[in-house]
Amino acid sequence: MPFDAASKTALEGITTATLTTILLKKGLRNVWIRGGMPIRAGQARRVGPAYTLRFVPAREDLATPASWASPISTRAAIEGMDEGVIAVVDGLGVTDAGIFGDILCARMAYRKVEALVTDGVVRDLKGVLGTGLPVWCNGAAAPPSVAGLTFVGWQEPISCGGVAVFPNDIIVADDDGAVVIPAALLDEVVAESVEQEAMEAWIMEEIGRGTPLPGLYPMNPETKARYAATKASKP
Amino acid sequence: MPFDAASKTALEGITTATLTTILLKKGLRNVWIRGGMPIRAGQARRVGPAYTLRFVPAREDLATPASWASPISTRAAIEGMDEGVIAVVDGLGVTDAGIFGDILCARMAYRKVEALVTDGVVRDLKGVLGTGLPVWCNGAAAPPSVAGLTFVGWQEPISCGGVAVFPNDIIVADDDGAVVIPAALLDEVVAESVEQEAMEAWIMEEIGRGTPLPGLYPMNPETKARYAATKASKP
Amino acid sequence: MPFDAASKTALEGITTATLTTILLKKGLRNVWIRGGMPIRAGQARRVGPAYTLRFVPAREDLATPASWASPISTRAAIEGMDEGVIAVVDGLGVTDAGIFGDILCARMAYRKVEALVTDGVVRDLKGVLGTGLPVWCNGAAAPPSVAGLTFVGWQEPISCGGVAVFPNDIIVADDDGAVVIPAALLDEVVAESVEQEAMEAWIMEEIGRGTPLPGLYPMNPETKARYAATKASKP
Amino acid sequence: MPFDAASKTALEGITTATLTTILLKKGLRNVWIRGGMPIRAGQARRVGPAYTLRFVPAREDLATPASWASPISTRAAIEGMDEGVIAVVDGLGVTDAGIFGDILCARMAYRKVEALVTDGVVRDLKGVLGTGLPVWCNGAAAPPSVAGLTFVGWQEPISCGGVAVFPNDIIVADDDGAVVIPAALLDEVVAESVEQEAMEAWIMEEIGRGTPLPGLYPMNPETKARYAATKASKP
Amino acid sequence: MPFDAASKTALEGITTATLTTILLKKGLRNVWIRGGMPIRAGQARRVGPAYTLRFVPAREDLATPASWASPISTRAAIEGMDEGVIAVVDGLGVTDAGIFGDILCARMAYRKVEALVTDGVVRDLKGVLGTGLPVWCNGAAAPPSVAGLTFVGWQEPISCGGVAVFPNDIIVADDDGAVVIPAALLDEVVAESVEQEAMEAWIMEEIGRGTPLPGLYPMNPETKARYAATKASKP
Amino acid sequence: MPFDAASKTALEGITTATLTTILLKKGLRNVWIRGGMPIRAGQARRVGPAYTLRFVPAREDLATPASWASPISTRAAIEGMDEGVIAVVDGLGVTDAGIFGDILCARMAYRKVEALVTDGVVRDLKGVLGTGLPVWCNGAAAPPSVAGLTFVGWQEPISCGGVAVFPNDIIVADDDGAVVIPAALLDEVVAESVEQEAMEAWIMEEIGRGTPLPGLYPMNPETKARYAATKASKP
Repeated sequence: MPFDAASKTALEGITTATLTTILLKKGLRNVWIRGGMPIRAGQARRVGPAYTLRFVPAREDLATPASWASPISTRAAIEGMDEGVIAVVDGLGVTDAGIFGDILCARMAYRKVEALVTDGVVRDLKGVLGTGLPVWCNGAAAPPSVAGLTFVGWQEPISCGGVAVFPNDIIVADDDGAVVIPAALLDEVVAESVEQEAMEAWIMEEIGRGTPLPGLYPMNPETKARYAATKASKP
Repeated sequence: MPFDAASKTALEGITTATLTTILLKKGLRNVWIRGGMPIRAGQARRVGPAYTLRFVPAREDLATPASWASPISTRAAIEGMDEGVIAVVDGLGVTDAGIFGDILCARMAYRKVEALVTDGVVRDLKGVLGTGLPVWCNGAAAPPSVAGLTFVGWQEPISCGGVAVFPNDIIVADDDGAVVIPAALLDEVVAESVEQEAMEAWIMEEIGRGTPLPGLYPMNPETKARYAATKASKP
Repeated sequence: MPFDAASKTALEGITTATLTTILLKKGLRNVWIRGGMPIRAGQARRVGPAYTLRFVPAREDLATPASWASPISTRAAIEGMDEGVIAVVDGLGVTDAGIFGDILCARMAYRKVEALVTDGVVRDLKGVLGTGLPVWCNGAAAPPSVAGLTFVGWQEPISCGGVAVFPNDIIVADDDGAVVIPAALLDEVVAESVEQEAMEAWIMEEIGRGTPLPGLYPMNPETKARYAATKASKP
Repeated sequence: MPFDAASKTALEGITTATLTTILLKKGLRNVWIRGGMPIRAGQARRVGPAYTLRFVPAREDLATPASWASPISTRAAIEGMDEGVIAVVDGLGVTDAGIFGDILCARMAYRKVEALVTDGVVRDLKGVLGTGLPVWCNGAAAPPSVAGLTFVGWQEPISCGGVAVFPNDIIVADDDGAVVIPAALLDEVVAESVEQEAMEAWIMEEIGRGTPLPGLYPMNPETKARYAATKASKP
Repeated sequence: MPFDAASKTALEGITTATLTTILLKKGLRNVWIRGGMPIRAGQARRVGPAYTLRFVPAREDLATPASWASPISTRAAIEGMDEGVIAVVDGLGVTDAGIFGDILCARMAYRKVEALVTDGVVRDLKGVLGTGLPVWCNGAAAPPSVAGLTFVGWQEPISCGGVAVFPNDIIVADDDGAVVIPAALLDEVVAESVEQEAMEAWIMEEIGRGTPLPGLYPMNPETKARYAATKASKP
Repeated sequence: MPFDAASKTALEGITTATLTTILLKKGLRNVWIRGGMPIRAGQARRVGPAYTLRFVPAREDLATPASWASPISTRAAIEGMDEGVIAVVDGLGVTDAGIFGDILCARMAYRKVEALVTDGVVRDLKGVLGTGLPVWCNGAAAPPSVAGLTFVGWQEPISCGGVAVFPNDIIVADDDGAVVIPAALLDEVVAESVEQEAMEAWIMEEIGRGTPLPGLYPMNPETKARYAATKASKP
């Protein structure tokens, strides 16, 4: 896995709001996974490379409890997950059939999967919460996946919440949902985001002092100079 | 009411996730009421026979505050509810007019109605929570029902959240929403669900021991034998 | 600002559920802002005159970080807000780009804006909650406004959540969302709402005593007489 | 059937656009059936009393080809239709299962049903067109009704396209779709519509002469006087 | 290609309405591709094995005019299509970017592709019609695919219009849209559909003679006997 | 009006499909007005500067037939339209109330308005077609605008079909719908589109000769050379 510990640590300190600002400045406007929100309030930020799973709609001859034992099954896909990956599941935005319940989430937690992100929903909400697996999803529903979905593969390019996700893209998920950083852009995004985050923290201090917005955010040359001086004065 | 206490007690221990799995194995894929989710987190599971109510859209000559005193009114319908029923209301999925507020919910609580389930919303959320009535709904909205709905009858077959509900079908509602068990299938569903629930509990223990998914869930013959031995060894 | 303190105080004691009932009796069925719900549970009721802001969709030549420094910008609009106004933002119902984040909300809180109401979403949810600004919105999303929206003006008539809002209409927001009272109807709505609220409180007491609904809600002549007697007997 | 020939003849000469204007002036804003559009361009206007049919969603134990032989079936409902009625079918807005195909439409045409109006779709489009039955619907789909719908009754109040329809309300359908006239308002709506239609025809002549809109539409007192003079001068 | 000429000829005489009835009797309720309707009225029925293509959402770093020259491109996919296949394209239901325009459709027509079916839209409608390629789609839009979509592969399982389609499933498309016959069920579906079509033709004749629906459709034993006699009497 | 005749003539020969390709190459992906499609098949391409109109939702105290005589009315807006403009109307995507009927469209035709483009619908479809005004819209509906909309102004920036339109942006509408060219980009877009259109015509000829797609579209260096030679050889 080419995802290094330093990038991970840096990204754990950056909001997805900042990341989307940086990505937009690079021309990427569509990187936020619609429908994938934290399953519980205050869930800590999670960062990791994408491990993708893909469903197509249910067809009664394919989507059966028997299919769960097929070699192409969610079970097989889960057994291939390494520690630290973020499972990203194309659930087709289906909200009336849960992609996974307590058993599969427990196994993912056991394998130290960093998080589960999907535009679909989970089932057996209480059980899933009990496993401790961090989940970003679109809610909960009682019916099993086969009531609406057929599993077809993993580690392929997928659609998730209206966003393209490729295996090994970097996923960052927090209170504002989950964002995709294309693997090729990782280093420059990390570098610029760290600087942006520091700058916005200083602006928030200024707001607390009553500084009006015009000239402050975005900064005009005078404010930029003042900010530069502040940075320079720090040890 | 032909709904016996033993079935009720059994179903109070079964998740709606398990019930939908059992119903799907019998060919029923559409039994989960879309949009009817718990009004507060952690609301205990509720079980009871369906008592149905039906709205059509508002028409300004019909849907008026005056209509609330009509013999065909939500008031009359509520006075016909026996202790233990679950009121299931076809709110047409309308989310900008509340079907009931604090007064009607308080009366239902007074009559020991088991729960209210709807694909619509309630109004005066704070007041409704204050009545203690367990509610599964699609949120809250300030406007009265007559801003969007006209009440037309009760104890008829209805649509609720994309599911057909007939009077006296059995409703089970928990953290994953509300599920309909057709009255004619009650006994076999209860029997099979109890067994399924026990089996899944054992599988969760295995997951905790680090058993991989393939062969475990669903069980292959070897695992089945192991599970059978475990069951046999219990007192 | 022609909005007097007495009306404000009165409205702080009236639910939006009651207000929509009174407005419907006057023929106004479309006054509740769809999608504008409390950002945190139990947020206290807020009342104030509307200060409107308007977005159109993003166009890549217009919606840029550079646009934030334009004279027609959200920054300029915020600097024009007086203490006590409720900012009402036409976010076009867009849920995948946040209209404001922590910095703009902090400035609004500093200026003692009464509340922010929108059919869109905010970004940097944790930061926004930290500012203490009361917000009614449709959730949170990481991307900046320019990923989906272009700001075009303020203090114009707007659409918000399917409702027409004009500058200086009165907004009341509570657990059931946000309601618009047309400025011209303010005095009569306040007067009738106070009476309605008192009457419904008495009806709730009757429900607690086990009085059935027919004849009680709505009141028949006998109940009206009984209620009148109760009112008369109060000091 | 209390629907008289004179009203029918009069309404055959009135556009649904004019009818909705007259109904709105009486406070009725929600009388146009969403999704019920002409199945072929240029279909002549149709007028008749509503004969309602009602579906709920499919449930696999109920919605089966076998159900078509049940006493409560679309077949039985059709055999109860008198010449001249307009069948109005609550298809729940479902667009992926056809409520009727060529056989049922042929039988309705044989029974001289005036028209079929639904917010759902038909199936076997070519066959349905071949029967000559005038249809207003939301398109076509191959699957049978039981793929999505369960039939539950007829001549009840229904929802159709977001509008309340009661048996014997009057339906008028033309190029702009289908409109409901509440039975109790029929006579006054007919009278006012005839006058409105004549007035708008005269305004269109004025437009052809180049008269500007202000003062013409709506008419100011001077234009009203001119129009009155024109009317008076006609034989 | 294992799809034989006899099945093709037989299916060219069967409506998709009949096919969905037969498939539903086998338990398959979800085989009709939502949104894939004939691009022009009266387009002849088309039959062939599915050749699948798959898009994911656009991401500005991937979905560029430059990507059209990539080895994984719609161009390469089209060059792999044999005569007689039906191209089935997962367009994610996107209706604001056209999957193909006149040039790609002209090449498909040149290669004798039987038809194009998609839940997306085409662009340059006039040009596409000019190529003569039979198309089932969800309308037209001017923007290029890269405005909303990224192409990722072909001959994989896909979702199209809410239906699972696998390479070499059989597609039949007519006035009612496009239907998927799972490859494994082909022979029995063809056999039963031919019989069903003949039976319904006889029922239509009966309707023309004024036979009422009950007992005719579905047939009771007496009608079945009468139908059997008719069939036997034919040469 | 700064829109010159040469640009108009050039754009009348360019498809909206080509225009969106050119605009995307400049980074503009969101320029096609969703929902604004030709009211009749084969309507000739129309080109002109945008004249914008804006609605907000109906509120019963504002959206009345009486409002049609207000100084801020659609009538006044229409009287300000010069010959050749394209009226672009923000109808909020409302499809159950017509923005204009036959009378207003007749007046616009009389004033030689080039076209009407909206994301809403018209009413009195037959009458509107009779006026000959070229219209791009989202269908037809019987109810008057005031059933769903309140008119608030003209010649302001608007949202139309999810696209930002400013007064005097250039609109081009044809079989694929309507596209916005930002006024500042007009000259370069016209120049590049003319070249693109010629190149694609040559590619279509190549397709007719059986040239495969790879290397042809997009062109590789060899094809580019061949195309250059062809162009050079033309008189």
